[in-house]
Amino acid sequence: MTEFSTRTVFFISDGTGITAETLGHSLLAQFPDMRFKQVRLPFVDSIEKARDCATRIREAGRSDGTRPIVFNSLVGPELVAGLRNADALFLDLFERFIEPLEQELGQRSTHTVGRFHGIADSLDYKNRIEAINFALAHDDGVSHAELDVSDVILVGVSRSGKTPTSLYLAMQFGVKAANYPLIPEDFERSKLPTELHKHRRKLFGLTISAERLSQIRQERRPDSVYASLDNCHYEIDAARRLMERERIPWLDSTARSIEEIATKIMQDVHLNKRGY
Amino acid sequence: MTEFSTRTVFFISDGTGITAETLGHSLLAQFPDMRFKQVRLPFVDSIEKARDCATRIREAGRSDGTRPIVFNSLVGPELVAGLRNADALFLDLFERFIEPLEQELGQRSTHTVGRFHGIADSLDYKNRIEAINFALAHDDGVSHAELDVSDVILVGVSRSGKTPTSLYLAMQFGVKAANYPLIPEDFERSKLPTELHKHRRKLFGLTISAERLSQIRQERRPDSVYASLDNCHYEIDAARRLMERERIPWLDSTARSIEEIATKIMQDVHLNKRGY
Repeated sequence: MTEFSTRTVFFISDGTGITAETLGHSLLAQFPDMRFKQVRLPFVDSIEKARDCATRIREAGRSDGTRPIVFNSLVGPELVAGLRNADALFLDLFERFIEPLEQELGQRSTHTVGRFHGIADSLDYKNRIEAINFALAHDDGVSHAELDVSDVILVGVSRSGKTPTSLYLAMQFGVKAANYPLIPEDFERSKLPTELHKHRRKLFGLTISAERLSQIRQERRPDSVYASLDNCHYEIDAARRLMERERIPWLDSTARSIEEIATKIMQDVHLNKRGY
Repeated sequence: MTEFSTRTVFFISDGTGITAETLGHSLLAQFPDMRFKQVRLPFVDSIEKARDCATRIREAGRSDGTRPIVFNSLVGPELVAGLRNADALFLDLFERFIEPLEQELGQRSTHTVGRFHGIADSLDYKNRIEAINFALAHDDGVSHAELDVSDVILVGVSRSGKTPTSLYLAMQFGVKAANYPLIPEDFERSKLPTELHKHRRKLFGLTISAERLSQIRQERRPDSVYASLDNCHYEIDAARRLMERERIPWLDSTARSIEEIATKIMQDVHLNKRGY
């Protein structure tokens, strides 16, 4: 087995497979020298489909010359039996944890197929969809209506990461995040936009390095003043001074993913959604 | 222990905790009669922080009168030791799987802290952010530019779920999804909008029940013709006929979450992002 051999990795689920894939990605990232070919097999909800999966696993093993790795979140014993009819390293997500949970809780689990992602009717889900619509309606300072029902209002210079962060907060956490650009007019007046003043306690700032900002803006408006390094330096410094003066908590988005930024925001502003 | 006692559940991670939380939610959903108070403790990257977690776990146990459940994705032995200095059911996400993976791959894992979500520089991450910007720029038929670089174009009547699905496809899978409304003018002409014709093979339709659609539209424009059940029936039937005539694959979004819809679309149109 050479260091750079390719392994096929399957994520198998009776639902979307997103749970298996999320855990699988985290684990595979611990082996950065390996190359993995990743295959998602969702909605495996019959014995026939489980057997089809076994066939695909066998074929991948033959073609790779090494046995595949399978992250499995199927729960029914018949399904699992159908699946395991192939040579692979099977890592069962649920099997390992369900039993200790049953013992601890003194209850049997429902073994419900694809339960987590089949929640389109739940209140939690409805909140998430509402929050997405809210983020879209309140992107880039488009609307000042209903800012009082927002959970957080992101501020920062154009292209500092506000929009994807707002959408992620909505999608993952059901948090209503508006976002509002800080623009040269605000810096000249040295004041927050009037609309934001009464919501000061909900504000959270994003900043970014001037180099990175210039690079991002170049892609959108090449060779503009807007994208120039000088202008980016000016805007970022002015925005930072404004945030410090107004005591707005802020975070540097430069080397952080939207997952990390969103999680930090949740932590810092103690958003009370879903019990956090 | 009564059936409805509350348990505190902690999701603990040296990164965002999203992996622990995703798996935890799936597992807890198997116990629908229980009430769980959920607490995310992210960015636990020092022994002091791990010990603080242990304190919070102990306090929760005292206040609940039952020991908490901990989904732990910390990997370093010192961190884990600091954390385990409390009475709880510890479910270690990584510990269970890393060892069999190391054996299978013949490699040691890097045990890298928060590796998965610290990937803001990776190509994969850049694709996701680009896809989010693409989805926003091509929401609701706003722009016809660059439709040729889209991976999929969602079509359907207004409020059938196109926008959140496009954003989820972008955020989770890095897929560039445009979306395009089917409107009464299209039905009268009995034809797809001209711009879409040359991209027919990328089209994917969403439909929805008339009752659900009317309900969603009522929330936005109460007592309008747009929201009336009759009009919703008309639009949905006409859109479905149009999609059938044009042989556009479609899916009913009524009882499905955006995760399920997005996964089905990935499966049906064989999107080749990230090796699927």
